[in-house]
Amino acid sequence: MKTTVPGPKSQELMRQLDGMQAMESIQFCIDYDKSQGNYLVDADENILLDMYTQIASLPLGYNHPSLIRAMQDPSNLKHLVNRPALGNYPSVDWPQRLEASLMAVAPRGLNNCMTLGCGACANEHAYKAVFMAYRRKQRGGEPPSQEERESSLVNQPPGSPPLTLLSFSNAFHGRTMGALMMTHTKWMHKLDFPSIDWPIADFPQYKHPLLGNTEQNRREEARCLQQVCSKIEEYNARGTPVAGVVIEPIQGEGGDNHASPDFFRQLQQVCKDYGAYLVLDEVQTGAGTTGHMWFHDTFHLPSPPDIVIFSKKMMTGGFYYTDEMRPTEGYRIFNTWMGDPSKVILLEEMLRVIRDEELLDNVSRVGKKLVQGMTDLQGRYPSQLSGARGEGMFCAVDVVDSKHRDKILTDLRNSGVLAAGGGIHTLRLRPTLIFQEHHADIFLDIFDDVLHRNK
Amino acid sequence: MKTTVPGPKSQELMRQLDGMQAMESIQFCIDYDKSQGNYLVDADENILLDMYTQIASLPLGYNHPSLIRAMQDPSNLKHLVNRPALGNYPSVDWPQRLEASLMAVAPRGLNNCMTLGCGACANEHAYKAVFMAYRRKQRGGEPPSQEERESSLVNQPPGSPPLTLLSFSNAFHGRTMGALMMTHTKWMHKLDFPSIDWPIADFPQYKHPLLGNTEQNRREEARCLQQVCSKIEEYNARGTPVAGVVIEPIQGEGGDNHASPDFFRQLQQVCKDYGAYLVLDEVQTGAGTTGHMWFHDTFHLPSPPDIVIFSKKMMTGGFYYTDEMRPTEGYRIFNTWMGDPSKVILLEEMLRVIRDEELLDNVSRVGKKLVQGMTDLQGRYPSQLSGARGEGMFCAVDVVDSKHRDKILTDLRNSGVLAAGGGIHTLRLRPTLIFQEHHADIFLDIFDDVLHRNK
Repeated sequence: MKTTVPGPKSQELMRQLDGMQAMESIQFCIDYDKSQGNYLVDADENILLDMYTQIASLPLGYNHPSLIRAMQDPSNLKHLVNRPALGNYPSVDWPQRLEASLMAVAPRGLNNCMTLGCGACANEHAYKAVFMAYRRKQRGGEPPSQEERESSLVNQPPGSPPLTLLSFSNAFHGRTMGALMMTHTKWMHKLDFPSIDWPIADFPQYKHPLLGNTEQNRREEARCLQQVCSKIEEYNARGTPVAGVVIEPIQGEGGDNHASPDFFRQLQQVCKDYGAYLVLDEVQTGAGTTGHMWFHDTFHLPSPPDIVIFSKKMMTGGFYYTDEMRPTEGYRIFNTWMGDPSKVILLEEMLRVIRDEELLDNVSRVGKKLVQGMTDLQGRYPSQLSGARGEGMFCAVDVVDSKHRDKILTDLRNSGVLAAGGGIHTLRLRPTLIFQEHHADIFLDIFDDVLHRNK
Repeated sequence: MKTTVPGPKSQELMRQLDGMQAMESIQFCIDYDKSQGNYLVDADENILLDMYTQIASLPLGYNHPSLIRAMQDPSNLKHLVNRPALGNYPSVDWPQRLEASLMAVAPRGLNNCMTLGCGACANEHAYKAVFMAYRRKQRGGEPPSQEERESSLVNQPPGSPPLTLLSFSNAFHGRTMGALMMTHTKWMHKLDFPSIDWPIADFPQYKHPLLGNTEQNRREEARCLQQVCSKIEEYNARGTPVAGVVIEPIQGEGGDNHASPDFFRQLQQVCKDYGAYLVLDEVQTGAGTTGHMWFHDTFHLPSPPDIVIFSKKMMTGGFYYTDEMRPTEGYRIFNTWMGDPSKVILLEEMLRVIRDEELLDNVSRVGKKLVQGMTDLQGRYPSQLSGARGEGMFCAVDVVDSKHRDKILTDLRNSGVLAAGGGIHTLRLRPTLIFQEHHADIFLDIFDDVLHRNK
């Protein structure tokens, strides 16, 4: 470290940017040419071990040679300069590219995929697929009436029906209007924006450590499931039927909140009981970051979820869906670009690297070491840390309060480690899939030092 | 032309795709390696003059040498393989890239810009900027109350206030939930999705030809403006205040509906009178396609609009905004990626080409020829065509009914011209900015032949 972060050069660049855009979220500027692997280099030539990785969206770190090769491959150039309207005019190699990328890692039972630009768009259009399937079922195969078609154009029922979706406390699904109605994290995300009264159930709040609180946590999950049932009954009864339930396999932005496989199996049964579709938002948990391609693989659900949403480390947004969710008319789910082939090329290359270098094993192994290391640290600094937890590289630990958490994050940053906050007082880590044991050692040493200084 | 379109090879590829995704909107497959300039080559080696250009999103045609150079430039490689979280960690060259691209063509008075992934996201977040500015004004500088912050988390007032936006009949702004509430084109876009009752006013419907119907069209505009006023008063009075008015400078998807500069000047005054912000959606009209960088430049508005939204030919989504619209807290408008630097690089190069090759002049000149040619054709085929109109390459003509329009489009396609429908029975053309006189001649000849065959 040559300066504190942001250093003088970052600050000068931020002053320039300030003349062109809102700046409150800008942290510092990065020299992406010099950054490499798990290390970013900032404008002031500080070298930081990156454990937040562009908001958990950089699967293979900086300037990975395989991704560089893919972007330099002349046969891919057409996809960089001729962005197609994928929903109308796919390229001649598109079926083969989809098969080699998205479909090669499709969750079991989800035979269809849709590419979209980002996680919020993916959520928005997944919700639309849910609403359409729900109404198709209600119509029993009949085409929509003239009244439905016409009223939909002016936002009125019956064409714009008062359907709802159930979300969970502390959920995060995105910041466009539909996704934002399902998001319940921080007021900055939500305040001042009109919304609709859609049902919200509590996401289980575990008591840590898990061992020793098994029974209490089981009761908490039962309470939340019961709330899901009663909310669905309540909204169904008042003429605003619940068409779907949307949930993150692990809540990310909300503070790394886990629930048990049994909770998700029971939730799926509840959905089936009430005729609501189950949508899993794997935007943050997907793409191998937990040591599994999709975290819901570990739930062993009796049947596939209806939709699985992805983005971030998948490089492209989009969602997988079952045949039942497939739109039956054209242009129901559509936009100009429908994703971006240049990102799918990166994904294809990334999946090859994951396979060739057995990165899922790496993620599981190093992730265990990270969580074990943080568990040791919380034993040594019990007044500062608690609840160390994680699945693969999806790791977190709670800090005693948000002010202290923020101080720890600043000290870590000035000591060469970039981590991030989550929830109210959680410190979250989202290293790359190529994060190795020695990186974990470096982090744990620096973390130890920072905690020691903040005793 | 070697086959009809889609030919056997496209059909085989579409069969493969059918195993992975919904197919109803897929038209045929393109060989993007072989496509060049204004001509696309499909899977069956048919060569088509492209006058729809990937839903009006391809500014310089296929495989433009300048864009190829930009994507092969080693100094740009970092932007292709290291997609940043632009709202947190911009690259060290980002201020300079923004200045050379987006800010170099910023509409007068709009000193700030925000990049986003697509046109729908740009609309969604622009609406949020409107709602925030409106509430800031209402609070008179006071911070939001604790009650506002907490209620916003569960979608309830006062934190989630019942603010509204006014849109226009036949408007198209996107397909995510907020943008979709402002969209009123076709039932396929809208049916089955929940919505909120937001005010909708009529967009003027001109009687053609414009010359000879001046007085009637002026009265139509006055009627629509009066409706805007009464809708705002109605929604304000019932406790659902209108925070903004969103409008396309020319309606694209809705059928190439134009209104006069005077209409837009009066609309701005109405907005000021009622304290509503004016948002111009230039997703389809922007980026030089009308012969002006922004079509609203031709309105000579007394003061700048509050927000101008862009996407499509700008290669990146986003919006420009005045200082008043600038968010005052971090993370109010935000997402993981906040656009994509690799697209801004393409934009920078495109703007250089527009300037160096004086393409805006080309657009105006060739556009006039296109409209004149179609006007001549409607004189010769009055039972088939009417209302030829256009600004630069943003051109259209009405066909007698939708069935005949679709027949003409199919015949054009099988004769080597790709055009598209819009509105109910409009045929729309969206050639590139490098479309030249001889391309117009080719099109007009083929169009003449198709109309003759369909007499």
